[in-house]
Amino acid sequence: MIERVTTGVNGLDEKIEGGFVKGSINLVTGKTGTGKTAFCASFLYEGAKKNEPGVYVTTEEREEDIIADIQAMFNWDLKSIEDKKLLKFLYLEPIVPIDYDIIRDIGKILKIYIFDLYSNIEKIVKSINAKRLVIDSTTIIEMFIRDKYMRRVALMKLINNLKRLGVTTILTGTVPEGTDMLSLGGIIEFFVDSVIKLEFMPVAEEFKRTMTVRKMRRTDHSIFIHPFEVTKSGLKIIEIK
Amino acid sequence: MIERVTTGVNGLDEKIEGGFVKGSINLVTGKTGTGKTAFCASFLYEGAKKNEPGVYVTTEEREEDIIADIQAMFNWDLKSIEDKKLLKFLYLEPIVPIDYDIIRDIGKILKIYIFDLYSNIEKIVKSINAKRLVIDSTTIIEMFIRDKYMRRVALMKLINNLKRLGVTTILTGTVPEGTDMLSLGGIIEFFVDSVIKLEFMPVAEEFKRTMTVRKMRRTDHSIFIHPFEVTKSGLKIIEIK
Amino acid sequence: MIERVTTGVNGLDEKIEGGFVKGSINLVTGKTGTGKTAFCASFLYEGAKKNEPGVYVTTEEREEDIIADIQAMFNWDLKSIEDKKLLKFLYLEPIVPIDYDIIRDIGKILKIYIFDLYSNIEKIVKSINAKRLVIDSTTIIEMFIRDKYMRRVALMKLINNLKRLGVTTILTGTVPEGTDMLSLGGIIEFFVDSVIKLEFMPVAEEFKRTMTVRKMRRTDHSIFIHPFEVTKSGLKIIEIK
Amino acid sequence: MIERVTTGVNGLDEKIEGGFVKGSINLVTGKTGTGKTAFCASFLYEGAKKNEPGVYVTTEEREEDIIADIQAMFNWDLKSIEDKKLLKFLYLEPIVPIDYDIIRDIGKILKIYIFDLYSNIEKIVKSINAKRLVIDSTTIIEMFIRDKYMRRVALMKLINNLKRLGVTTILTGTVPEGTDMLSLGGIIEFFVDSVIKLEFMPVAEEFKRTMTVRKMRRTDHSIFIHPFEVTKSGLKIIEIK
Amino acid sequence: MIERVTTGVNGLDEKIEGGFVKGSINLVTGKTGTGKTAFCASFLYEGAKKNEPGVYVTTEEREEDIIADIQAMFNWDLKSIEDKKLLKFLYLEPIVPIDYDIIRDIGKILKIYIFDLYSNIEKIVKSINAKRLVIDSTTIIEMFIRDKYMRRVALMKLINNLKRLGVTTILTGTVPEGTDMLSLGGIIEFFVDSVIKLEFMPVAEEFKRTMTVRKMRRTDHSIFIHPFEVTKSGLKIIEIK
Amino acid sequence: MIERVTTGVNGLDEKIEGGFVKGSINLVTGKTGTGKTAFCASFLYEGAKKNEPGVYVTTEEREEDIIADIQAMFNWDLKSIEDKKLLKFLYLEPIVPIDYDIIRDIGKILKIYIFDLYSNIEKIVKSINAKRLVIDSTTIIEMFIRDKYMRRVALMKLINNLKRLGVTTILTGTVPEGTDMLSLGGIIEFFVDSVIKLEFMPVAEEFKRTMTVRKMRRTDHSIFIHPFEVTKSGLKIIEIK
Repeated sequence: MIERVTTGVNGLDEKIEGGFVKGSINLVTGKTGTGKTAFCASFLYEGAKKNEPGVYVTTEEREEDIIADIQAMFNWDLKSIEDKKLLKFLYLEPIVPIDYDIIRDIGKILKIYIFDLYSNIEKIVKSINAKRLVIDSTTIIEMFIRDKYMRRVALMKLINNLKRLGVTTILTGTVPEGTDMLSLGGIIEFFVDSVIKLEFMPVAEEFKRTMTVRKMRRTDHSIFIHPFEVTKSGLKIIEIK
Repeated sequence: MIERVTTGVNGLDEKIEGGFVKGSINLVTGKTGTGKTAFCASFLYEGAKKNEPGVYVTTEEREEDIIADIQAMFNWDLKSIEDKKLLKFLYLEPIVPIDYDIIRDIGKILKIYIFDLYSNIEKIVKSINAKRLVIDSTTIIEMFIRDKYMRRVALMKLINNLKRLGVTTILTGTVPEGTDMLSLGGIIEFFVDSVIKLEFMPVAEEFKRTMTVRKMRRTDHSIFIHPFEVTKSGLKIIEIK
Repeated sequence: MIERVTTGVNGLDEKIEGGFVKGSINLVTGKTGTGKTAFCASFLYEGAKKNEPGVYVTTEEREEDIIADIQAMFNWDLKSIEDKKLLKFLYLEPIVPIDYDIIRDIGKILKIYIFDLYSNIEKIVKSINAKRLVIDSTTIIEMFIRDKYMRRVALMKLINNLKRLGVTTILTGTVPEGTDMLSLGGIIEFFVDSVIKLEFMPVAEEFKRTMTVRKMRRTDHSIFIHPFEVTKSGLKIIEIK
Repeated sequence: MIERVTTGVNGLDEKIEGGFVKGSINLVTGKTGTGKTAFCASFLYEGAKKNEPGVYVTTEEREEDIIADIQAMFNWDLKSIEDKKLLKFLYLEPIVPIDYDIIRDIGKILKIYIFDLYSNIEKIVKSINAKRLVIDSTTIIEMFIRDKYMRRVALMKLINNLKRLGVTTILTGTVPEGTDMLSLGGIIEFFVDSVIKLEFMPVAEEFKRTMTVRKMRRTDHSIFIHPFEVTKSGLKIIEIK
Repeated sequence: MIERVTTGVNGLDEKIEGGFVKGSINLVTGKTGTGKTAFCASFLYEGAKKNEPGVYVTTEEREEDIIADIQAMFNWDLKSIEDKKLLKFLYLEPIVPIDYDIIRDIGKILKIYIFDLYSNIEKIVKSINAKRLVIDSTTIIEMFIRDKYMRRVALMKLINNLKRLGVTTILTGTVPEGTDMLSLGGIIEFFVDSVIKLEFMPVAEEFKRTMTVRKMRRTDHSIFIHPFEVTKSGLKIIEIK
Repeated sequence: MIERVTTGVNGLDEKIEGGFVKGSINLVTGKTGTGKTAFCASFLYEGAKKNEPGVYVTTEEREEDIIADIQAMFNWDLKSIEDKKLLKFLYLEPIVPIDYDIIRDIGKILKIYIFDLYSNIEKIVKSINAKRLVIDSTTIIEMFIRDKYMRRVALMKLINNLKRLGVTTILTGTVPEGTDMLSLGGIIEFFVDSVIKLEFMPVAEEFKRTMTVRKMRRTDHSIFIHPFEVTKSGLKIIEIK
């Protein structure tokens, strides 16, 4: 019997046998503005409600900004959750080496992007005994490692480290504009346990946000495109009869 | 409660919770001729009317040309606004190093494109205590930094500097012809707080200018494509019933 | 008379003269989430039922995870099969050299990716006298050999080795998102004896999983697109009248 | 009040507030055979009729050939115009360095392609005190400067020089076959004051030549696609009711 | 009067003035699984029936495998034909140099890929005084010569050698998935005397195998797409009334 | 008054003011098998009938093969024309340097591809005082000059030489499969005086060969797509009422 971790998205769990696989690494991907941050927040808020501490690692915004982002979308009381140590935010600013010797040194790149990054994540996860983790986003890693080969190595090593950590994790990725890819480099989707793609597409003569479970290991999952809405209390899949 | 800065585009503010987030960095992007300059001008003119000084940095045209551009579109009295120190124009001609040693030296490139550029911007912003800033356009940076990696570093550093400056800013970008991208390099959209895309598309059997809010952090924003028109008093979203 | 090895997919064998050619190397390919692992598992489970031992080599997941994957899909008693030595799982973690001298040394790359990989496979195959073999997936090889030429050499050598081993084999490949290719590198399909492509496409106004036999040497095979379903007892082609 | 220079295209001036901005640099672009030379000739002939001397710089054909081109299209008396010093043709054959040291030397490339080219243009412009200038085409510069960066620098420098010269100028560009771009390199359109795109497209069940003003600084311009015809007396926009 | 060599495809000869030009080099190309081997086999079987000996050179499969392929498709008695020296199979395993000095040495590459390959072919052709020759496929040459220029040189030299040999020849090529090309490198089609493209496409509401004569020198050939079927006695064009 | 040279294609001259411009360089381009050789032959046969000697330079086939090609298409008496010195064929086999020092030496490349090639052409042209010239095809030059820049230089130099020779010339080019380009390199079309594109497309529910005049300097030409047929007496445009 596989243990499941509820997603916090209203209506999604019943389509994926009850939630994410416990300890799995899950990619939530989509173009700019398709609702990835809203998805991640729902996942951690759900955890907090169930007394499962969560960590939100952001590589693109400062802590106060991501908190403001979430509060603009949902009428949740994040403050009290943080006070109860059920949610922690961490901004890991990308280190961008400008010294050519470093840019080209695979060992140093791995140290900066993977070992240091990972050990910061591990530390905060352990500090509150987190059961849920979000890394929003991995695009920064794909963007600031020059060499395609090193980028693949770095992503694989990071994900292997996270698997060993054993915390149910969401990574966010970015679908580049004007493409049908699943991530900037087209690689990360191979290493993760599941891929959920967020889109914005016409459904029954209207434009709707949609989510599709493209892959989910250890799970008999829905293969349909599901429209969803962002309500003040969280994300909600719209059932079509 | 997030403080908002009105956009100056008639009908847009109510679709984005009142305006841009105060201090945010916003990308207005579109192909050649879709109305980016008109949008930027509306933003600064709105500020001037509210006694919020603004700076218009142009990297593609001289001050007198951009002023003439705006006066060709709108019947505004820019002269009196400038006299009241509510609007300043600054032409920052792109420096294009032709010495190979410089072209390849990431430190020098960053100094030229980011530190010098930024410190010029900071100086003029402070000189009139500007609350609003336009940099039209960032394409020049994407175009004259040879190396993809350096370009990414430069854009990230510039935007981080601007965030620290704390002035509500519009950057303009360019959608390359024949693509669905959001910028020349496909990167700047990750670093900014919001992306507004201007297009020219068929709406109800006619060609119309349109604008779409593709992303806006800290904001519950419209996800629709909005036709708009350029009137003599400014940009105006057309409501469709 | 060509000897055949049943596929374990309900309804497929009669479309390909009774099954895979004995000792052939077969590529099962599709995008993320199209059912490749389900296909491979069906093939080995079919073997176990017929007393033909099988080996499942996985390069992307640990043994326990792939077993859990299969058990989430099918209500099979894998445990008793493993106990009877009719099924063995082997996780071959990709070795990713980070030393540049190795990355560039074709001899060492071939040793790591082909000779070592192959000899591990050969050992486990012989240990249970396996008649069926799955390598899921070959994408890892395409991904971690830097040089296009080396990658082609490595794939050809690996497949030649497998042909000599004489075990009926399924390799899985990956159709990159947003393309109509048959594999990441567009090369492996030339070396194998058959290609079966899994897709997810509209059939009679519904989205369905489908499979198409794109090529099968020594076989007068169906050339149609066949919808199939994943039932608790295995994959099943849906006949359309 | 912005001074305007009539275009010489019957029906175009009223769509762009009276003509090109005086002293502006304008790109007329389109695929092979869409009417760029006809447009340029109309612009200079219009000037001659108004006693505004014009220079036609050609980089692809000899003087006598371009004159013959124009005379094949229009029944104009070019000879008497030339005699009155109201029109001068200049063939600037592209210099293509075949010495590798020169090909790679940005200083020398700029000297050959920009300083020498420009000083030849300046000399002939001043010799007849020209008010209108055509450079047909800039494609040769995009084609014979090897390095992308150098090409961008060269185009920007050339256009800046032309702006300082103060003569109202048309540059022609080429839309590469099978693309929706505006020029071979996708760059020149950023530096110019206006872009007019010529196409050949179906209009009301017939194929027609069309022109679209894609951008015009300092101008409230039409945003529609206008069919036009080539008559013996010049280009003429067809009004659609 | 041009001498013709019948193709062995039922219904094709009358569409191409009686068959291939004697001594010509003909490309039969298509995606994986479109019937190239069936076409080649028909050509040689036809020869054998007319007492014209033929050679089948295979670069992708061993002799016994290609024979089994053919016997799976057609109920022909290949054994007796081989015994009469009317058909010979030759497997030329691709040599893939892994020594960098060789990979980069155009002389050695040409020796391995062209002179050695050709002299092996010539020897077997002469041994049975063959009148018909098949090389299935040339893709291996396109795949294992690293450098684009060398690949072009090698293909041209090989085809020139074959032309001098004077045997009517079919080369097979591969249309890469997801493209409309005629071969992997887009080059071989220029050097051959004819190109026949095999496809799988919808004809009158059904999917059908089709063949199109894209080019045939010295021949007034059909320009239509012809559906064909694979019957037990050989390929047969389906006439549409 | 511009002197014209009839094309030999029945119905084409009246659409282009009487024929090609005397002494012009004309590109006839299309995919494999669209009728380029038939067009060229018609042009030279027309000349022979009018006592204007012509030269057919072929870079892809031997003289006897190209003659056989033409005789397969048309019932013309080429023999008597050749005897009267009104038509000469010349096969210029491409020289493909395999010595790396030569491949990289622009001076030597130009000597081989342009000066030697041109002087051979000039010699044969002068030997019969040819008024018409065909070079079929230029693709070989685009294919065997490694470097893009050198290729552009070579094509421009060759065409400039031909212009000075003063003979009305047809060059053939190749539209690469799966593209809408006008030539392999997308460059030659800029240097020639006219471009005629041959295609194979659906016209009124049937597939037809078509020709389109994409550009013709010094000519008021048709801008329509004209279906044509290959009859035994030559090419003939089909008039659509």
